[in-house]
Amino acid sequence: MPPAEHSEWNWIDDVRRRAGSGPRVAIGIGDDTALLKTSTATLVTTDMLMDGVDFVVGETPADLIGRKCLAVNLSDIAAMAGRPTGAVVSLALPRRGGRALAEGLYDGLLRLAQESGCPIVGGDTNSWDGPLVVNVAVLGEPTGRGAVTRAGARPGDRVFVTGPVGGSLPSLRHCTFRPRLSEAQALHQCVELHAMLDLSDGLSSDLFHIVEASQVGIELDAGAIPIHDDVAPGQPHADRLNHALSDGEDFELLFCVSEEDAQTLLSQPPGGVELYSIGRCVPEPGVWLLGADSRRPLGRGGWEHRFT
Amino acid sequence: MPPAEHSEWNWIDDVRRRAGSGPRVAIGIGDDTALLKTSTATLVTTDMLMDGVDFVVGETPADLIGRKCLAVNLSDIAAMAGRPTGAVVSLALPRRGGRALAEGLYDGLLRLAQESGCPIVGGDTNSWDGPLVVNVAVLGEPTGRGAVTRAGARPGDRVFVTGPVGGSLPSLRHCTFRPRLSEAQALHQCVELHAMLDLSDGLSSDLFHIVEASQVGIELDAGAIPIHDDVAPGQPHADRLNHALSDGEDFELLFCVSEEDAQTLLSQPPGGVELYSIGRCVPEPGVWLLGADSRRPLGRGGWEHRFT
Repeated sequence: MPPAEHSEWNWIDDVRRRAGSGPRVAIGIGDDTALLKTSTATLVTTDMLMDGVDFVVGETPADLIGRKCLAVNLSDIAAMAGRPTGAVVSLALPRRGGRALAEGLYDGLLRLAQESGCPIVGGDTNSWDGPLVVNVAVLGEPTGRGAVTRAGARPGDRVFVTGPVGGSLPSLRHCTFRPRLSEAQALHQCVELHAMLDLSDGLSSDLFHIVEASQVGIELDAGAIPIHDDVAPGQPHADRLNHALSDGEDFELLFCVSEEDAQTLLSQPPGGVELYSIGRCVPEPGVWLLGADSRRPLGRGGWEHRFT
Repeated sequence: MPPAEHSEWNWIDDVRRRAGSGPRVAIGIGDDTALLKTSTATLVTTDMLMDGVDFVVGETPADLIGRKCLAVNLSDIAAMAGRPTGAVVSLALPRRGGRALAEGLYDGLLRLAQESGCPIVGGDTNSWDGPLVVNVAVLGEPTGRGAVTRAGARPGDRVFVTGPVGGSLPSLRHCTFRPRLSEAQALHQCVELHAMLDLSDGLSSDLFHIVEASQVGIELDAGAIPIHDDVAPGQPHADRLNHALSDGEDFELLFCVSEEDAQTLLSQPPGGVELYSIGRCVPEPGVWLLGADSRRPLGRGGWEHRFT
């Protein structure tokens, strides 16, 4: 269903004009469904974001809320080394201030849609007495050798991340981040990505998805984990490391490649891709943090969670 | 993202077992995105439903809420004469009673998914301090001669509906209805459907979508509109007719075909399809209600809305 087609808001016409273009859009906003020209395989992902949980209306600027709601889905498409083909957007708008909120949301949504080549092709706009809820679903298509899952990591693989982690909430980076679509595709062209995901819950937690899906263990090199500048500097290193391991909402890619491909990446990194080698896959299931002279098991919530 | 993969609820494993099957599901619940085998064109639609607006938690049984949230999307796929290929489901669950609610919702969702050949391939399950919100997005594929839009009606076309309308809210038919997928495909095989949609807002309101998209007018024959038995019998006929015109949430199909195809349908109705011829397309844009000796313009909300 199209966004608020019964509404008389002028911005809806504006949304239609700005949203529906693209060579793949056979039918955009305004019919019972949209119709996209697709290849033989279609990626699909969805995320629901709520006021007070994923953003705070009145504190987080509305365009950044809109941007985030699309970006987290694009990050999932990137995690499969996919290319987005279209998005549908559902809103439950609070009655008070809902119109201005919708306009701001769509400003951010449409800007990122444009930047990432992901037209908004449909949606469902509602008002209610509750807080703002936004749901976005994104379709995409695999690239190159196909979709990269979480299940293909092997003992001996090297583990990489595409950027420093930690501190994304206070800095608002959880709203402003750029989904790593181009990075994923560049990596996918260069090497065989055995397993990949995007860091949403936090490094130490997300690693378990690869551990479980691939039936491997992962040893992290504590000294190699890139801590983001957003993590406040005036605290002990152990605390800063814990932020990097557990804050979440980094939306960098984490991936596993063979040692040979790791050497290729380190000697000839693909243009525009930041790379940090942070660990290695091992046969024994679990996640460990290697220090200078220690090897400690990590829990899902970071190492302090396990030891205090 | 998969439903509540961090949760320890046992039902999640159960959901995965019951949800993810089907020959088109290359990757189901449990990775960053799902992957569906698709044809060269993919339909996509989404609907967000909220407690207190589309259902009432505590009054509407949870399995019927779940069923409705998928069914309204399948109805949109039917309106394009499409076949569903997969669905993704997002939940914002209230903290109090959220677990039982989720189990009930998924009972209804999975049952209808099974009935309609639409596997649930992914989702996003959240808890918050607000009321229940459910978003479903459904992918599908066109059948036969392709997707049927709202835009192809022509003057002279006959207008049909696939069942009686009105009274769906008090009877809970808005939750229990069967999406007209098989009916749409049977009709699409028999005749050339010029325009079609599913009746969600109400007959008199939904007609305007065809009027605007097709640039035609529609004359309804007041005596031919099938009023559902759910509309209480002990009231004047004019009131019952108004319920049929304006109640909404009927989820029957409304479609336009040439006079020749109308005769084909009336003489040899496709098996299993109820058919009511209720009007005709005319050149002058607008919607009119023809009585025995009257012709009155209809507003979006039904005729009383315009005349009292």
